[in-house]
Amino acid sequence: MMPISPLSKATLAVIQTKIDEKTKPLGALGALEPLAVQLALISEQRRKNHADFDSRSSADKGNGHISIKMPTMLVFAGDHGINEEKLSIAPSEVTQQMLLNFLQGGAAINCFCQSNELALRVIDCGILQAINPNDIAQVDDNSAGVKLIEQRLGAGTNNFSVGPAMSISQVEQGFEQAEKLVNAQVAQGVELLLLGEMGIANTSSAAALMSALTCFSVEQCVGRGTGITDEQLAKKTTLIEHALQRVNLADSAAETLNQAEITELLSQLGGFEIVQMVAAILTAAANTIPVVIDGFIVSVAALVALRLDKNVANYLIFAHVSEEKAHQLLLSELLAAQTLTKQGGQALLNLGLRLGEGTGAALAYPLIKAAASFYNHMASFESAGVTV
Amino acid sequence: MMPISPLSKATLAVIQTKIDEKTKPLGALGALEPLAVQLALISEQRRKNHADFDSRSSADKGNGHISIKMPTMLVFAGDHGINEEKLSIAPSEVTQQMLLNFLQGGAAINCFCQSNELALRVIDCGILQAINPNDIAQVDDNSAGVKLIEQRLGAGTNNFSVGPAMSISQVEQGFEQAEKLVNAQVAQGVELLLLGEMGIANTSSAAALMSALTCFSVEQCVGRGTGITDEQLAKKTTLIEHALQRVNLADSAAETLNQAEITELLSQLGGFEIVQMVAAILTAAANTIPVVIDGFIVSVAALVALRLDKNVANYLIFAHVSEEKAHQLLLSELLAAQTLTKQGGQALLNLGLRLGEGTGAALAYPLIKAAASFYNHMASFESAGVTV
Repeated sequence: MMPISPLSKATLAVIQTKIDEKTKPLGALGALEPLAVQLALISEQRRKNHADFDSRSSADKGNGHISIKMPTMLVFAGDHGINEEKLSIAPSEVTQQMLLNFLQGGAAINCFCQSNELALRVIDCGILQAINPNDIAQVDDNSAGVKLIEQRLGAGTNNFSVGPAMSISQVEQGFEQAEKLVNAQVAQGVELLLLGEMGIANTSSAAALMSALTCFSVEQCVGRGTGITDEQLAKKTTLIEHALQRVNLADSAAETLNQAEITELLSQLGGFEIVQMVAAILTAAANTIPVVIDGFIVSVAALVALRLDKNVANYLIFAHVSEEKAHQLLLSELLAAQTLTKQGGQALLNLGLRLGEGTGAALAYPLIKAAASFYNHMASFESAGVTV
Repeated sequence: MMPISPLSKATLAVIQTKIDEKTKPLGALGALEPLAVQLALISEQRRKNHADFDSRSSADKGNGHISIKMPTMLVFAGDHGINEEKLSIAPSEVTQQMLLNFLQGGAAINCFCQSNELALRVIDCGILQAINPNDIAQVDDNSAGVKLIEQRLGAGTNNFSVGPAMSISQVEQGFEQAEKLVNAQVAQGVELLLLGEMGIANTSSAAALMSALTCFSVEQCVGRGTGITDEQLAKKTTLIEHALQRVNLADSAAETLNQAEITELLSQLGGFEIVQMVAAILTAAANTIPVVIDGFIVSVAALVALRLDKNVANYLIFAHVSEEKAHQLLLSELLAAQTLTKQGGQALLNLGLRLGEGTGAALAYPLIKAAASFYNHMASFESAGVTV
């Protein structure tokens, strides 16, 4: 993977002063202020990393504006072999049906992307059955404006409660494809990425990875997903515990795994969409692009990315805390890794969402846009003639 | 004031079924679902109240879509005589300076209205000194797209710690003007109103009214506003307690005051902007227009409106809970009065804002738009061919 620049603190004081001089009491914009600091630091770092930085005019170089052009939602989809144990409210076929729904513009994520003017791309990372080209043709006619990108790692993972979910080479292939995809998005001018996912039973894979990579027990990491019964929840816990015994990691090791060990862990417990999201997050940060993290599954991908490169932390924006029980625990862990702003110590939204698809990220986007707007455009006390 | 239709529950089951049939697990959109129910009920009521309802085609009559066209932010401004006691971090002159900042497009509310495509109107309800027409001309040249509406009730209120803030006829005049203003907005096609305010020291007036109209003590109702010291806070509490002794209301009476008594209370403790917001909220509801309530001050105006007509409750959307200490208490009281949906029992945002100006309402607007969007456009399981 490409290296990630640690965010430079050099301009932190200048950025904070710029915010403090705006026509409002100190700190009166609450959580939007550390968010603006984070976005400004990232924009500044991007300008610095740019090859022609030194040759630019000082106005262009140091204007300090936040730039988050062409915000784009990437929804990664995959199927999960463990769903043969019936750990979800829905059969795996629903993943494909929902992808078609995305492509026809009928899902919640379509509504929220349209409402907030976000581009939407759906990535088939390996759902059970690929979308039929005839269906896509039909979909194109409907012109919902959603692009399908196929980078399938297989036809669903294997059931990880009985053996590895996928091979090491599938993990590596997923990393490569997602890296290429995000680099292409950045090359087209995308300056803000939002991530979402779709995959029946993927909370099982996410919970397993979270428990393997933190000090939290399986019981702390599992939840009801989109709404399973007590019985299903108990079975989910037991199956994940069995899988983790097979993988056999010491708690103390979680934070010090090397890349080979994490790749092994992803092959044992991962999902195709989770693997690709890990690489997408790392690649965005390597391009100094902020990444908006949706709910529990995307947050687990962020956790894996963090274990691979701790510099990724300051590039993450946590959109919301979901109803999935473990999400708050996981967010605390991820926020603690942010060395500069910590986003006010919480996710932007707390609306009791439990849908996935990137819906929380899409809903949080206007707050990110608002933070950029006040940072870029609000008057200072001096310029406005306000005498506080 | 015009009568407010109690929201009809007749279509509640139809609306809930429509939401439950959409392609998502039951309840998975969290707080956006009761919000969509509320908006749909209001839109339905508006269609019913419309004079030509019976003669419309059934498609037009019963399509059940949420309609929130031409969303408009009204920021009501006024000055407060009690600020001669230095209860705020800023002198009263800052109210006018900030109004000029609004008109020049430099304040936080400008950024958020622009970012979310909201029309912005600023109402001078009686700041210390009216805006100089020369300044307005200059402002018009700057074309920040903000309109100033003058309906001044005076040059700031009197210091309510020593006598009535204003006369009864000023209250009545404020009611009339705000009613006319909102009726004019509705006649122009506005289907969603958002309210904000500006007025140095107006948390004092708001805290006094809250304590008078609820069982909460003055100490529970006062806070630090935009950031006063311990000493200022103690003085603020004492002065408000004195004023309330003068007004002399029994706690038990708070919920059963008649219109004359509430008018008296507003004349004793009110602010010009609070008086006009009370009438604006009631008039919007009378026109079956939902009203987005910003922070503490606007919430107090909503409380006064509720005491005047309990039917207003279901038309209110609570944008955010602010850092002002008493706001959470007040929101609990207001949410408890909502008989139909209770908005998930909490305000939409919790971002630690403490600015006013309508900033929280403007920031919450995209969530309201998103709720309308999923309700109006999301596919059903049947239409999308999803087999859950």
